[in-house]
Amino acid sequence: MGATLADIAAHARVSEATVSRVLNDRPGVAQSKRQAVLTALDLLGYERPTRLRRRSGKPVGVILPELINPVFPAFAQALGPNFARRGFSPLIGAQSEGGLDEDEYIDIFIEAGVSGILFVSGRHSDATFSTKRYRELRELGLPLAFVNGFRADVDAPFFSIDDSSAMALAVRHLASMGHRRVGLANGPDSSVSAQRRAKGFRDAVRETLGADAEAPIEASLYSDDGGQGSARTLIARGCTGIVCASDLIAVGVLDEARRQGLKVPADLSVVGMDDSPIARHSWPPLTTVRQPVSAMSIAIADAFVGEMNHVPASRTEYLFQPELVVRESTGAVGPSA
Amino acid sequence: MGATLADIAAHARVSEATVSRVLNDRPGVAQSKRQAVLTALDLLGYERPTRLRRRSGKPVGVILPELINPVFPAFAQALGPNFARRGFSPLIGAQSEGGLDEDEYIDIFIEAGVSGILFVSGRHSDATFSTKRYRELRELGLPLAFVNGFRADVDAPFFSIDDSSAMALAVRHLASMGHRRVGLANGPDSSVSAQRRAKGFRDAVRETLGADAEAPIEASLYSDDGGQGSARTLIARGCTGIVCASDLIAVGVLDEARRQGLKVPADLSVVGMDDSPIARHSWPPLTTVRQPVSAMSIAIADAFVGEMNHVPASRTEYLFQPELVVRESTGAVGPSA
Repeated sequence: MGATLADIAAHARVSEATVSRVLNDRPGVAQSKRQAVLTALDLLGYERPTRLRRRSGKPVGVILPELINPVFPAFAQALGPNFARRGFSPLIGAQSEGGLDEDEYIDIFIEAGVSGILFVSGRHSDATFSTKRYRELRELGLPLAFVNGFRADVDAPFFSIDDSSAMALAVRHLASMGHRRVGLANGPDSSVSAQRRAKGFRDAVRETLGADAEAPIEASLYSDDGGQGSARTLIARGCTGIVCASDLIAVGVLDEARRQGLKVPADLSVVGMDDSPIARHSWPPLTTVRQPVSAMSIAIADAFVGEMNHVPASRTEYLFQPELVVRESTGAVGPSA
Repeated sequence: MGATLADIAAHARVSEATVSRVLNDRPGVAQSKRQAVLTALDLLGYERPTRLRRRSGKPVGVILPELINPVFPAFAQALGPNFARRGFSPLIGAQSEGGLDEDEYIDIFIEAGVSGILFVSGRHSDATFSTKRYRELRELGLPLAFVNGFRADVDAPFFSIDDSSAMALAVRHLASMGHRRVGLANGPDSSVSAQRRAKGFRDAVRETLGADAEAPIEASLYSDDGGQGSARTLIARGCTGIVCASDLIAVGVLDEARRQGLKVPADLSVVGMDDSPIARHSWPPLTTVRQPVSAMSIAIADAFVGEMNHVPASRTEYLFQPELVVRESTGAVGPSA
C-alpha cells in the first residue's frame, strides 16, 4: 500500500515512517501525531486496524420527537453516561418541523453504522402508525428498543412509565384535599400513552370519587398551548383540580389560570407529569408525578446494550413506577368551590 | 456478485431478481421491498450505488456541552430544519458528566462519516483550552464551525452573540428604572463569553452610571446553583439589580431572592440572558436579553453548508445583535433602596 501510506502521510503531515509506526502500533510516536494519522485514516475512508479502534465506544442512535419539551433532553442527558459506561456512544437525532423525520433518521443512523436504534416517544407511541418499518428492521437483525408506548408485534424491549399508577397518584392527591370535580388535560387521542392515561384517569376517579363522578378529559398536543386550550374547557366545566399529561401542558394550564385571574392553588389545583426541569422553576412550582428518568435510563441502557451484544432482553414492556412530588400548585379546595 | 446478491436477498427476504431490480433502479418494485433491499445493503456494509443514496442528506455532527440549559436544545431544534433544507442532517452529540467528552464525539463523528462538525459553546469557548485538536482537524480538511467563543488561530467561521451589546442593553434598562447599584452574575472566569460579558458590563456601568460606579461581578458555573451563590454575594453587597449571564443563572437568582423573602421586582430586579424557553415560564417571567437563536441558526447553516460544499465562509466572527425582552422581573427601585 505504497501510494496509500504516502497519502496518509501527506494528509496527516507526518513522515511515512510515522504512519507505518502508528499502523503497526509501535511506540515512539507523539500522541498528537498518532491522532493525526488515525484521523487521516478516518477521513480518507480507510478502516482502522482493529487494535487501533477508538475507545469511545460503538455508536448507537437515539431518536427523539423534539427538544422543546424538557423531558426529552433530560432523557438524552441521563442516557449519555449509562451508555458510555457500557461501551456505547449515543448519537441523537432530534426531529423537528421542517427537519428530518423518524424514517430519515433511521436511514442516516444505519448508514452511519450504529449498533442499534432507541426510539423515545417515537411513531410507536402513536397507535395509528403502522409498525411495519420496525418489523422490517428487526428482520434485518438491527437491535431496537422503545420508550413510552408499546406495540406487541415488534420484537424488541419496551420501557414505559406506568400511566395507570401515575393517574391514580394524581387523582388521589387531589381527592385527599377535597377536590370532587377533577379533569384531565391529556395528550392527543392517538397517543398510546394518552389512551392509557385516559383509562387510568377514569378508573382512578371512579375508585376515589365514586362510580357516578364525572371525569372530564380534554385532548390536545403535548404543548403549553395545548394545555391552555384544555384548561379553558375544563375550568368552564367546573373543575377545581386539573391533572396534566405533561409538565409542559401544566405550564399552559397555569398560564390560562393567570389569564383568568384565578389563584393557584387557592382557586385551582394543578398536577403536572414528568418532573422535568421546568416543574421546579414554574410559578407556583408544580406538584407533579415524576417520571423516573434516571432509573429508566439505567434499565434501558442495560437491556439495550444486552440486545446489541446478542444477549436479548425479555420481550416485554418494562413498567416504571412514578412518584408524586408535592410542591405548591396543589392545595385544599377554596371557599368558593 | 452472485453470493452477494443471494446474501442481500436472504437478509431482505426478497428474491434475487428483486435485489437486482433495485440495484439497477428499475421500476416494478414495491416501495417496502425497495427499502428492505437498501437497508440490507447498509446493514451488510455495502456502499449504495450513487443514484440510490438516501435523500435525507449528508450527516453533520453537532456537539453540545449539555442539554440541561434549555438554550442548547433550542439551538439544536432551530438548526434541524435549516440544515435539512440545505441537504444536511444534524446528528447531535451531547456531552455529560460521566458520558462522552468533546474529543470522543469528534472521533465518533469522523468514523460515522460526517461532512463537518459544529461546536456549540465547546472547548473553544474556554480560553484556557488549546486549539491544537481543531487546527489538526482543519489541516486534515474537515470543515468546522463554532458558536459562542472565538479563537483567531482556528481556520473556521465563528458565530457569537454580541456580548458587549447584551450587557449594554441590560445595564441601561436597569439604570433607566433608577438602579444605581447593579451586579453581574457571570459564568466562569475561563469562559471567553464570560470574559467579554465582564468587560461589556464594566464598560456599560461606567458609561451609564458614571466613571466611579462600582460594578461588582461574581463568577460561577452557568447553572441555577451557580446563580444562587452569586446572588447571595451580590445582594449582600447592596445590589438592587442583577444582570445574569444566562436564564438558568437568573432562575437561581430568583430562587435566592425567594429564599431571602425579597420580592421581585419590588426589592430586586433580575435580567436574564438567552430568552430560552425557561424565561417565559419562570416566576415572575424573566426580563431577558434574547440570543437570536433563529437568526443565528440560519446564518450558521448557510455558512457552514458553504464550507462543506467547498465554498469557504469568511474567516471572521459573525456577531449577532441581541434584543431586550421586557417581562415582569424588572421594575423601578423600591422605596427601601
